[in-house]
Amino acid sequence: MSGNTLGKLFTVTTFGESHGPALGCIVDGCPPGLELAESDIQPWLELRRTGTSRHTSQRQEPDRVQILSGVFEGRTTGTPIGLLIQNEDQRSRDYEKIKDRFRPGHADYTYQQKYGFRDYRGGGRSSARETVMRVAAGAIARKYLQERLSLTIRGYLAQIGPIRLEPKSIDTAYDNPFFSPDPSRLDELEQYMINLRRDGDSVGARVNVIASGVPVGLGEPVFDRLDADIAFAMMSINAVKGVEIGAGFAAVEQRGSQHRDELTPQGFRSNNAGGVLGGISSGQDILVSIALKPTSSIIIPGQTIDVSGNVTDVVTTGRHDPCVGLRATPIAEAMLALVLMDHYLRHRAQNGDVRSTTPIIPAQAP
Amino acid sequence: MSGNTLGKLFTVTTFGESHGPALGCIVDGCPPGLELAESDIQPWLELRRTGTSRHTSQRQEPDRVQILSGVFEGRTTGTPIGLLIQNEDQRSRDYEKIKDRFRPGHADYTYQQKYGFRDYRGGGRSSARETVMRVAAGAIARKYLQERLSLTIRGYLAQIGPIRLEPKSIDTAYDNPFFSPDPSRLDELEQYMINLRRDGDSVGARVNVIASGVPVGLGEPVFDRLDADIAFAMMSINAVKGVEIGAGFAAVEQRGSQHRDELTPQGFRSNNAGGVLGGISSGQDILVSIALKPTSSIIIPGQTIDVSGNVTDVVTTGRHDPCVGLRATPIAEAMLALVLMDHYLRHRAQNGDVRSTTPIIPAQAP
Amino acid sequence: MSGNTLGKLFTVTTFGESHGPALGCIVDGCPPGLELAESDIQPWLELRRTGTSRHTSQRQEPDRVQILSGVFEGRTTGTPIGLLIQNEDQRSRDYEKIKDRFRPGHADYTYQQKYGFRDYRGGGRSSARETVMRVAAGAIARKYLQERLSLTIRGYLAQIGPIRLEPKSIDTAYDNPFFSPDPSRLDELEQYMINLRRDGDSVGARVNVIASGVPVGLGEPVFDRLDADIAFAMMSINAVKGVEIGAGFAAVEQRGSQHRDELTPQGFRSNNAGGVLGGISSGQDILVSIALKPTSSIIIPGQTIDVSGNVTDVVTTGRHDPCVGLRATPIAEAMLALVLMDHYLRHRAQNGDVRSTTPIIPAQAP
Amino acid sequence: MSGNTLGKLFTVTTFGESHGPALGCIVDGCPPGLELAESDIQPWLELRRTGTSRHTSQRQEPDRVQILSGVFEGRTTGTPIGLLIQNEDQRSRDYEKIKDRFRPGHADYTYQQKYGFRDYRGGGRSSARETVMRVAAGAIARKYLQERLSLTIRGYLAQIGPIRLEPKSIDTAYDNPFFSPDPSRLDELEQYMINLRRDGDSVGARVNVIASGVPVGLGEPVFDRLDADIAFAMMSINAVKGVEIGAGFAAVEQRGSQHRDELTPQGFRSNNAGGVLGGISSGQDILVSIALKPTSSIIIPGQTIDVSGNVTDVVTTGRHDPCVGLRATPIAEAMLALVLMDHYLRHRAQNGDVRSTTPIIPAQAP
Repeated sequence: MSGNTLGKLFTVTTFGESHGPALGCIVDGCPPGLELAESDIQPWLELRRTGTSRHTSQRQEPDRVQILSGVFEGRTTGTPIGLLIQNEDQRSRDYEKIKDRFRPGHADYTYQQKYGFRDYRGGGRSSARETVMRVAAGAIARKYLQERLSLTIRGYLAQIGPIRLEPKSIDTAYDNPFFSPDPSRLDELEQYMINLRRDGDSVGARVNVIASGVPVGLGEPVFDRLDADIAFAMMSINAVKGVEIGAGFAAVEQRGSQHRDELTPQGFRSNNAGGVLGGISSGQDILVSIALKPTSSIIIPGQTIDVSGNVTDVVTTGRHDPCVGLRATPIAEAMLALVLMDHYLRHRAQNGDVRSTTPIIPAQAP
Repeated sequence: MSGNTLGKLFTVTTFGESHGPALGCIVDGCPPGLELAESDIQPWLELRRTGTSRHTSQRQEPDRVQILSGVFEGRTTGTPIGLLIQNEDQRSRDYEKIKDRFRPGHADYTYQQKYGFRDYRGGGRSSARETVMRVAAGAIARKYLQERLSLTIRGYLAQIGPIRLEPKSIDTAYDNPFFSPDPSRLDELEQYMINLRRDGDSVGARVNVIASGVPVGLGEPVFDRLDADIAFAMMSINAVKGVEIGAGFAAVEQRGSQHRDELTPQGFRSNNAGGVLGGISSGQDILVSIALKPTSSIIIPGQTIDVSGNVTDVVTTGRHDPCVGLRATPIAEAMLALVLMDHYLRHRAQNGDVRSTTPIIPAQAP
Repeated sequence: MSGNTLGKLFTVTTFGESHGPALGCIVDGCPPGLELAESDIQPWLELRRTGTSRHTSQRQEPDRVQILSGVFEGRTTGTPIGLLIQNEDQRSRDYEKIKDRFRPGHADYTYQQKYGFRDYRGGGRSSARETVMRVAAGAIARKYLQERLSLTIRGYLAQIGPIRLEPKSIDTAYDNPFFSPDPSRLDELEQYMINLRRDGDSVGARVNVIASGVPVGLGEPVFDRLDADIAFAMMSINAVKGVEIGAGFAAVEQRGSQHRDELTPQGFRSNNAGGVLGGISSGQDILVSIALKPTSSIIIPGQTIDVSGNVTDVVTTGRHDPCVGLRATPIAEAMLALVLMDHYLRHRAQNGDVRSTTPIIPAQAP
Repeated sequence: MSGNTLGKLFTVTTFGESHGPALGCIVDGCPPGLELAESDIQPWLELRRTGTSRHTSQRQEPDRVQILSGVFEGRTTGTPIGLLIQNEDQRSRDYEKIKDRFRPGHADYTYQQKYGFRDYRGGGRSSARETVMRVAAGAIARKYLQERLSLTIRGYLAQIGPIRLEPKSIDTAYDNPFFSPDPSRLDELEQYMINLRRDGDSVGARVNVIASGVPVGLGEPVFDRLDADIAFAMMSINAVKGVEIGAGFAAVEQRGSQHRDELTPQGFRSNNAGGVLGGISSGQDILVSIALKPTSSIIIPGQTIDVSGNVTDVVTTGRHDPCVGLRATPIAEAMLALVLMDHYLRHRAQNGDVRSTTPIIPAQAP
């Protein structure tokens, strides 16, 4: 109930701090019989890993995942899957300086006030390091959804600071350190990041995620709507400040005659809904967009107070990402996978398997 | 598990359809000893009620709430509070025409596919009528939060179609049918709505909600963050397509040196965070903004299919709101109250009462 | 979270006090398409109803249930089912005398201490009247389980005070006011109850419940075992002090070679397990036995204290059951139905439908 | 939702199989500030450990627990506590013989049917080895309850086969391998176990657990009663077939005038209720008694079938406890601690801290 569990039927409970000995999670509710090995999870961890380009934190964590339970002779057994990743490259001394003061824009102040004290080393539990287990758990969901429903999830960097990127080639997004879907703009991104690091500053970003092949019917009205659970999952990612489904905030200026997605026997004519109507998937692509704030740990001095309430300032050295949005794509993909997996099982509980439903119109309009 | 319960410690479970005999809810987890009567709930229902101006649906529902349990001699007993509201102005015959066809942009299609059939009368469970119980339950949360923590929640219409409204006088928002926070623009809004209705069309809107007096420390990292639960609650409201906390999507273009809210002994210098850091309330105002799509039930004909997959078109007569955003303010306020109430109880469970915490800096910076 | 919800996928949330205006519940998670009317629920309420023989409380409640939502054109829609029963025969003045004192053996003292005050009229929320909604909700589960799985549930009075009854004719248990499974002993029971009432005393009882046709595979190790959830559900019934599955406490003196139920291709050779192995149903009959304490509301004076802690005594007049065990059979049956329904849906979520599983041995051994 | 989480506010989620690389758990919801080290947990694991007398399984597991998160500078931080114990003495080859056949009385058959296949090594997830994490998590709850409420929990062996033991000296129960509360009967127990092992058979047992110092007011009516949650927790322990609170099944033959515990200003005059009235703790000792069935893994041949449904027999060699009841005391104590901890936090959420409640009568009657 302290909030470290995600999902209701496919649940992920995580533990671990940035500079503790290890991070781990328990995935409960995975159907039995799924072929699963560490090698199914490791590639997704690689996508999220730091230290692989000069534009991310230089902390070197191998992020080798171990499956400790729930798999027998290469298949899931239906019992909980325990996952563990050792921390290997902590440098806690970097954080002595901020032990007694609060970084503006960081969780330092709220953790201190909520709990009375805090693990200040690397941000403790509030660190983005925590997201490694989300990606690990998400990998299991992705594999299941892919194999059973041919459902795929792909994301990309849509904007960083002033630079907006068009999804010209989403398939290439994994091939560059920015997750840019437009290969023609890599030099521009490279130069932007070099300048940003030189300034000692950070910047915000927008990441888009798309799920294709989602069966019609997932989502529970009225509270546990599919889009509500997506909003929850996305906003639970460190640094996220906004979530949109489909047209999102553009819907504010749309008229009904324009926003509504007309239906034809061949499919919907548009996708302003972002694949969700009344909280239930329509069979169209699920379209999600999130806003990530700029990292608060920067080397430009900022005014703050210490734990006694005295005026001071703070400079964050240590190793940090100048744009957390750069590594957010695999995390957001994982969160979407976890939500869809949970709702697939929920649907199956109440309605039997979606695979037996013949949609009136094709799931994916051309 | 079919998603009709909100909250974990202060839970609201609702039932009821647009044209059924009644709607109701059970509020479980209300602390004992709160003075409570129907008259504490009724004013909030009035704010949300249809038929009070010509710019909303003309359905005339008195929305008289009955407390059926959980209150004894004027005070809550700690046992579940049962609330009931009778439906009195159903006109189901209006819906015979859409019985076998799907309104574009509406939940008709997804309900039909998920459940195999649907209650088509007035949208059944997918109707905005369902939100009446949210407002009723929210009224109990608001009263408790006000009395115990002096916490207040106020919202307003921030934008409708192209018209953006500044929060010049939030206190007057309840006094006009648009929930406009700027009394100088009521004529403009009136004329806009008249034109919209004349066109037979609908339009989107943006609503902002602010919670003041929130104690520092509410929210559970890492998944059940306060902002994640707010995003969930807001996205669960009919027609909502986007949610922002604080700077929201503006954070995408901000630099870290600009976004971070510096701390002084007198309080934070800005509120880009929207009152939440690391998923935990900072003591600043909670700032939430939501996008509502235009109503799908309009009289401009739209192309669609029928339940057999044949091409047809649809015109929605009946009584509908041309802009659901106009009545969304009290609903969004109620949802924010419910989330804060739940997290207040969660905090109290793990940490003891927040009232004993002395924040290092004042909760509300000047 | 205040504990008024039962189940995880098929959830029942109840409200209502003994002398309030009404009792109600919300059944969430019922699969769509089940034919359902008030007439499917009413007969079970009749079985539990007071005032139908001279051996129960003489309170005359018609217990007419209303379905307020979730059913359209005679079938469940998949949305929450709201049920309501009005209270009609309250006599609150009977309780003025115990307003300020605690009946020994009753919840008066603990409610007062937990909540600071209590609704003393008829026991308020702690009254056995609360169980009426369990029976109503259970009726829906029973109908579904019967129709989909041919699963049936039957209970009977196994013992009252010193009188032990053999299950000679379980089918006749509903036909007599004692739920006796042995028609030859009705006179003896009649005379026993007459004497008990004449003494102004009450007595305990044992009730057995059997579920037949349970598919193999229901139940989730390691905590949410089928038997653990049954124990929970049974112990949550007012007055229950003990629960046994299969051999129960007799297993203490059994040897392993005697207790274990050997398997043959035709089925198990015995049923000491009571149909549950490792927390999962085996396909055998589920055998449950519960102990109910004697009613605390009796007219024999008892020593107690008042709310100020002063010595006093108490005599409970009003209308009470001299043996709550006499009406417990339909309640215990309902609880077992609710647990099995919930686990059936849970199983379906993770494993797909049990109907596709071919058990290695027949579900019911001869 | 696959049932590997216990509790609602103080939650314990476990993973691990008998012969997997490790077992672990995540304890979420522990209040911050509790002093905690491995040395607080280890002694309880020692009490449960096998191989310490000749009357238990001879598997030699050091059961060294590691705290991987949630503790900083010796105190809990309010974030999840990850615990890990490596398996070191697996002998999986012992189980090749039962790979394709079902031990009567064991979970082999139901796991195979539920999941389609099973980890047969040492019983996989159904092994009593799983309980090691219950004891580890329970140790944290016990420490908190002891320090904050001076609440203590003690259990003992009350019966093994035909031998009934009186609680003459509960404090000595930890000092002998049988958890006997009567030191005068250790020789008798020793001889009984020697004979049992010589027979190659196993036997059932009864274990009693007592919680003292429980504040009045814990427990949530109507479903999540304190006694219902205790029944759930106890029945979830491997091999448990019955649970009693207070008088338990003896209440069947009691009269109301005898069963009710009269109140005096000095306390209750008896404790037939077992410390729970109306599902809420009364301040008296909580009295729980459980029945454990005899181990199914014995060397006396039993008739069974193989996975193809053919007749065969089975002899279980390997290392097994001839009476699981002998090691059940620390497990049952841990489960009771976990339930009380959870309900303490639940109470605190709704009602504020129990410590501020002055009970009308002393918590512990003389």
